[in-house]
Amino acid sequence: MQKGTLYTVSAPSGAGKTSLVKALVDSDSQVTVSVSHTTRAQRPGEENGINYHFVDREAFLAMLDRNAFLEHAQVFDNFYGTSRDWVAETLDSGRDVILEIDWQGAAQVRRLMPDTVGIFILPPSQEALRERLTGRGQDEASVIERRMEQAIDEMSHYVEADYVVINDDFQVALSELKSIVVAQRQRLDRQQQRHGKLLQALLQHD
Amino acid sequence: MQKGTLYTVSAPSGAGKTSLVKALVDSDSQVTVSVSHTTRAQRPGEENGINYHFVDREAFLAMLDRNAFLEHAQVFDNFYGTSRDWVAETLDSGRDVILEIDWQGAAQVRRLMPDTVGIFILPPSQEALRERLTGRGQDEASVIERRMEQAIDEMSHYVEADYVVINDDFQVALSELKSIVVAQRQRLDRQQQRHGKLLQALLQHD
Repeated sequence: MQKGTLYTVSAPSGAGKTSLVKALVDSDSQVTVSVSHTTRAQRPGEENGINYHFVDREAFLAMLDRNAFLEHAQVFDNFYGTSRDWVAETLDSGRDVILEIDWQGAAQVRRLMPDTVGIFILPPSQEALRERLTGRGQDEASVIERRMEQAIDEMSHYVEADYVVINDDFQVALSELKSIVVAQRQRLDRQQQRHGKLLQALLQHD
Repeated sequence: MQKGTLYTVSAPSGAGKTSLVKALVDSDSQVTVSVSHTTRAQRPGEENGINYHFVDREAFLAMLDRNAFLEHAQVFDNFYGTSRDWVAETLDSGRDVILEIDWQGAAQVRRLMPDTVGIFILPPSQEALRERLTGRGQDEASVIERRMEQAIDEMSHYVEADYVVINDDFQVALSELKSIVVAQRQRLDRQQQRHGKLLQALLQHD
């Protein structure tokens, strides 16, 4: 049985990460995205277990206490975390797992699981990013500028990734992302796990 | 400018290596196959500079003397070698280079150029391989058996490769091979070479 590969996918907001990951997962049944646990309130349209596992603060802190998270973060008053058991079980079942997390989360995961493959998605230029961050043009210039500064800070960590995908043309970026996932499955150690018997039989002398 | 990647592609005869590499090269103008120098006689239908660079023994030994080969081998009375300069120039021009060589040649290349990516192509079973080696059924059983033993010896070196592609379905194997090449171009160091200016501009603060 071939174990799955754990991927972290990081990007500044506006780089198209979520759309690319969704298209990748839709095209490849062996790839799945991790659903985070969070203490933040469920919003209209969100489904428990699909968008997030919604838990209360007490439950989250209890999980944190028993070291149940592969990575976690606090954003203002809310906690977010990735279940260590779910990731381990999914990888053992042979599926690849994608964690959509920022560079700090990716760094936490890499420390615990050094085999993790880190992917960074970048926009083709600051202008393209600014355009995507401006959205419907209802935000003040200072808000956009703050978002740009945050994006630049996040992007400066691209050097910690194994692979960099530049999202200029969506279809090209998607096919590059798919190639990374397919190539990873042909690595020697993965093939030895998946095709152990076949490889043994090939080398048998009569 | 992104430098190309050097690949060694090894396989037992009968695994479909040459057809796969040809299809890969035909589909991707950035990939090229190295043309070996050889002292063996040109056969009808072969073109100098296309199938081989045909040179006489004296010229080959002079090249060997000045260390002009990245790898070389002697098979019976004939010499075969890969020009070190041609490989270096082609990689510098941004193209990927494929060397179709046996495990011994791949090992020589890896020692000199540790960045080389090694790919091994394997048949899905000994039965499939035997069928392909039997060809038109005109050979004696003992000849087939000797070919099988040679194939098994070659295959036992698959563990030295970075990637293993199993050629069961030709189109699947081809698309796996393409993915390895495309993924390699998204690696951090390659992207830093290719998109140095873009990456610098992305991180610029106003």
